[in-house]
Amino acid sequence: MEFSSKLLENAVYEVSQLPGIGKRTALRLVLHLLRQPKDQTNKLSFALQNLRNEIKYCANCHNISDRDICEICANPKRDDSLVCVVEDVRDVMAIENTSQFKGKYHVLGGKISPMDGIGPHDLNIPTLVNKVKSGVVKEVIFALSSTMEGDTTNFYIYKQIEPYNITTSTIARGIAIGDELEYADEITLGRSILNRIPFENSLKSS
Amino acid sequence: MEFSSKLLENAVYEVSQLPGIGKRTALRLVLHLLRQPKDQTNKLSFALQNLRNEIKYCANCHNISDRDICEICANPKRDDSLVCVVEDVRDVMAIENTSQFKGKYHVLGGKISPMDGIGPHDLNIPTLVNKVKSGVVKEVIFALSSTMEGDTTNFYIYKQIEPYNITTSTIARGIAIGDELEYADEITLGRSILNRIPFENSLKSS
Ligand SMILES: [Zn+2]
Ligand SMILES: [Zn+2]
Repeated sequence: MEFSSKLLENAVYEVSQLPGIGKRTALRLVLHLLRQPKDQTNKLSFALQNLRNEIKYCANCHNISDRDICEICANPKRDDSLVCVVEDVRDVMAIENTSQFKGKYHVLGGKISPMDGIGPHDLNIPTLVNKVKSGVVKEVIFALSSTMEGDTTNFYIYKQIEPYNITTSTIARGIAIGDELEYADEITLGRSILNRIPFENSLKSS
Repeated sequence: MEFSSKLLENAVYEVSQLPGIGKRTALRLVLHLLRQPKDQTNKLSFALQNLRNEIKYCANCHNISDRDICEICANPKRDDSLVCVVEDVRDVMAIENTSQFKGKYHVLGGKISPMDGIGPHDLNIPTLVNKVKSGVVKEVIFALSSTMEGDTTNFYIYKQIEPYNITTSTIARGIAIGDELEYADEITLGRSILNRIPFENSLKSS
């Protein structure tokens, strides 16, 4: 790409550093900002800088938070004895959206992935083990994605907390509600048959 | 979406104001920035603000430029008598990439589009007419997209410069080089037959 302006070239370069955004898309986004009032670009820039420079991570669960302790951890109505282990803040948001979970979270900040150079020591695992050690936690629910990395991470954590004799569980996998069986992948369908539940229980949940 | 942080919510909101970027994508981009060094977010923010606040438009052709007169207009080797009319800076970049055009440009800044509330007075048309009036221009090449808006804009400008008796042309439309005829749309294929060129000319251009 030949640019007529260094300012334009530089802005396109920085935008195209974002994942999944190529030079063409970056140019389209930047030209859009040029057609909008200056205020929009300034608000965007301030919002990104404010977030990056001011953000905190909850001292208890490591979730993204504006305060030292996040709103979920600070909520006395939520059950301390039930801890749901997730990868990042998106998983917390997804589970909160269901309104089905009244325990607390523990955000690992990733999964063990030797390919990406992420080992157990790069994740928030020791604070989880300490929580279990302290005796408050009765059940740890693993809610990582069911990939090799997710399974490895679950198992690593499981071995660390096994000595403390608490309940461990993983979220149920199966055919999504409303999905046609014929389009489901074999592994999911196979698991959903193996992990079938008593019919009466399915009546309760709907 | 339920956010655990106002800083996060605000950043996602501002990013999702960009065209074609939904809330989910915005969240993914913002979380990516949080995992990168602060420097990357700061460079991105500064680049966008610098561009938006410092950008100039060439006083001659209205192309995006860091100076009062753009590099193309300031180049004495380029032909003043040949003016290619385009919609925006992306078209200038696309034509410059071909290295086939040695004239100058005139950037309209859009097309006449009553649906979007864009009339002739919102575009850089008077400066084009003045250039033609001044007697320097021998040929105006229309290179707008061949849509209803493009055709309307071409015709509007054509009527304004017709009295000055200069050559007007539009870029050739046809089957892209390397494309199979069977996949071409009918209108393009039809035009490419109607506007066929002497065979010897096709030998020169390759
Ligand atoms: Zn927390
Ligand atoms: Zn210029």
